[in-house]
Amino acid sequence: MPSAYLDNNATTAVAAEVLDAMLPYFRAQPGNPSSLHGPGETAFAALSEARRHVARLLGAPRPEGVTFTGSATEATNMAAHAASLRGRNAALTSTVEHAATQNSLAARFADVHAIGVDHDGHLDEAAALAQIRTCGDDLALVSLLWVNNETGHIQDAAALARIASAAHQVGAWVHIDVVQAAGKLPIQITELGADLASLSAHKLHGPKGVGALWIAERIAQEFKPLIHGGPQERERRAGTENVPGIVGFGRAAELALAFVQNPAGPAALRAQRDRLETALIAELQDVTVAAASAARVGSTANLEFHGIDGEAALMLLAQYGIAVSTGSACGSSHHGPSHVLLAMGRDEAQAASSLRFSLSRETTAQEIDLAIATIPGVIQTLRTLAGA
Amino acid sequence: MPSAYLDNNATTAVAAEVLDAMLPYFRAQPGNPSSLHGPGETAFAALSEARRHVARLLGAPRPEGVTFTGSATEATNMAAHAASLRGRNAALTSTVEHAATQNSLAARFADVHAIGVDHDGHLDEAAALAQIRTCGDDLALVSLLWVNNETGHIQDAAALARIASAAHQVGAWVHIDVVQAAGKLPIQITELGADLASLSAHKLHGPKGVGALWIAERIAQEFKPLIHGGPQERERRAGTENVPGIVGFGRAAELALAFVQNPAGPAALRAQRDRLETALIAELQDVTVAAASAARVGSTANLEFHGIDGEAALMLLAQYGIAVSTGSACGSSHHGPSHVLLAMGRDEAQAASSLRFSLSRETTAQEIDLAIATIPGVIQTLRTLAGA
Repeated sequence: MPSAYLDNNATTAVAAEVLDAMLPYFRAQPGNPSSLHGPGETAFAALSEARRHVARLLGAPRPEGVTFTGSATEATNMAAHAASLRGRNAALTSTVEHAATQNSLAARFADVHAIGVDHDGHLDEAAALAQIRTCGDDLALVSLLWVNNETGHIQDAAALARIASAAHQVGAWVHIDVVQAAGKLPIQITELGADLASLSAHKLHGPKGVGALWIAERIAQEFKPLIHGGPQERERRAGTENVPGIVGFGRAAELALAFVQNPAGPAALRAQRDRLETALIAELQDVTVAAASAARVGSTANLEFHGIDGEAALMLLAQYGIAVSTGSACGSSHHGPSHVLLAMGRDEAQAASSLRFSLSRETTAQEIDLAIATIPGVIQTLRTLAGA
Repeated sequence: MPSAYLDNNATTAVAAEVLDAMLPYFRAQPGNPSSLHGPGETAFAALSEARRHVARLLGAPRPEGVTFTGSATEATNMAAHAASLRGRNAALTSTVEHAATQNSLAARFADVHAIGVDHDGHLDEAAALAQIRTCGDDLALVSLLWVNNETGHIQDAAALARIASAAHQVGAWVHIDVVQAAGKLPIQITELGADLASLSAHKLHGPKGVGALWIAERIAQEFKPLIHGGPQERERRAGTENVPGIVGFGRAAELALAFVQNPAGPAALRAQRDRLETALIAELQDVTVAAASAARVGSTANLEFHGIDGEAALMLLAQYGIAVSTGSACGSSHHGPSHVLLAMGRDEAQAASSLRFSLSRETTAQEIDLAIATIPGVIQTLRTLAGA
């Protein structure tokens, strides 16, 4: 049966070149990077090369700033934990963050201020700046995402930088979640004002089980680890390094950087997304595109199909071989409407009638064709059943 | 050049069967286990099967007790963190634990009591029991390893169970580090009295970047996570699961259990180790075997070659293609003498003249032949240079 995998914001397939790069490190080169013999040195050198590639993807000046983790969620928790040891009680974030940010801050800070967004997902910059002034030197951390995982909305980089500047004036650290930006936009992490940044390999055709926390030199001395043990990763994250996974992350970062640096690739991806979106809007009445008038990455479309239940649509589409989602995969087991769409002013019924379509550079025209051929009928069937 | 990899306690090569099991989950089956469509369900089912295999390796009654992590170090930190939230200030451990245990406890408890061992590495059971009584209901956690990573010494399971029983009487939790026991001894985790147990895939021919924390049903309600975010792993460890790594861990656990259940395998491994140890003792004067008169797993030999510098020997042997270590790989960058050997009553010079040889079921007779042919000459050269 033909199929279409349109859930790349949940996770991507490992690129063939990435898997090729990883394979030698499973059996032929099994060394522990902490070991002082040949196999250990080979593994250590492989980590160093991967670190350079991930730093380049971030536009970061020093590879040493990159600390490899088991996931972006772990990286975000590391940032929240280290900030929570600063003797300050407050953190500032937004209402449209990933669960990793919201829950890692809630677990560690007495005062978490979640700044709202408008109907398109734009952060309320004035409210953020005012809250930073109010918190003053009790503010430990500002944690914001750049590209939203559910809508593809891009927060204005200049606004993030202004918020970061205000945070720095009161001595707060700034953490930027670039999980969904990496491989989709060129990143200059210091221009965003970040002191910390989280990213994940498996969102950019690297393997699951590996992420990174970038740590700016200016806060490196004050940074304290979440996971204690051996001296790996400059004593910032103990535990034997996932050598094949990190090698894969490095190769994936190299490919992702090449993709964003050649305008033809992102333009072709955006054209695929727009073809899907335009066709669905044309075929179906009453479709609302989330963040439609905002800057969006070219890989994501979040569409509200009035009158249907998104989860029922997801299940029915799965029967036709089409994989989509109703929001963040990390929230799927919760079965509630998307907190991101609610924060953007949708009511529960509107949020529950939305589907996220997320493409990647590996998405084929055939997959889009199949989606366009299948989805309108499925939505119409559900609307008929619902008596809409 | 022929080579011998005798550093399997640092890390092992991924078994061919394990890599075969992992491969489909990189590209052909890329789903996120939290996703509700076909690729997600396939990934979720793969996690469930792996969980059953890891539970069986532990002799654990419920697969749901197994929580997958990024490493055994993370698992040990999770145990220490959850225990540190119990409103008690004390932890009890030993002087011969892995750095993950020592440092994760030190970071989280005001009072860490490290019980000593005798010359062979046996834990002072009477001292442990007395300290547990002294701490009383201020004791949150007892954390002990079963098989020592540096010497192969096996703590008496009955003594561990008695210590666990005393710990339970004061309401403390018991964490057992079975990283070096898994795949070397049959494990019945509940018979050891454990409430928590840490293990690692890459020590038993599984991949790096995946470990597990087993959590007993009786403490599951009270257990709180270290990493917050999505609801993965029953809300005990957030972050997208490392599906290929976990699948590899499951297959590695299945193979490791088959290995320990067939007496011929461990006996052949022990015979290889004994052949190496006997030959080196016969060829060289003044060799002391650590934990010689104690129960040891059949894969590890820790030999003190009087008069040499272990690190110089490691480097020279590496030139001949022989990979060994001077102790835990996780301590290698520290360049100090082994804290385990010091705790066993060796002086700094004795501890610094030791080498650890660690074999696995994949170690070949040719590797042992090469080691026997090469090591005596290297040790004699170093002794001559040292004027010994």
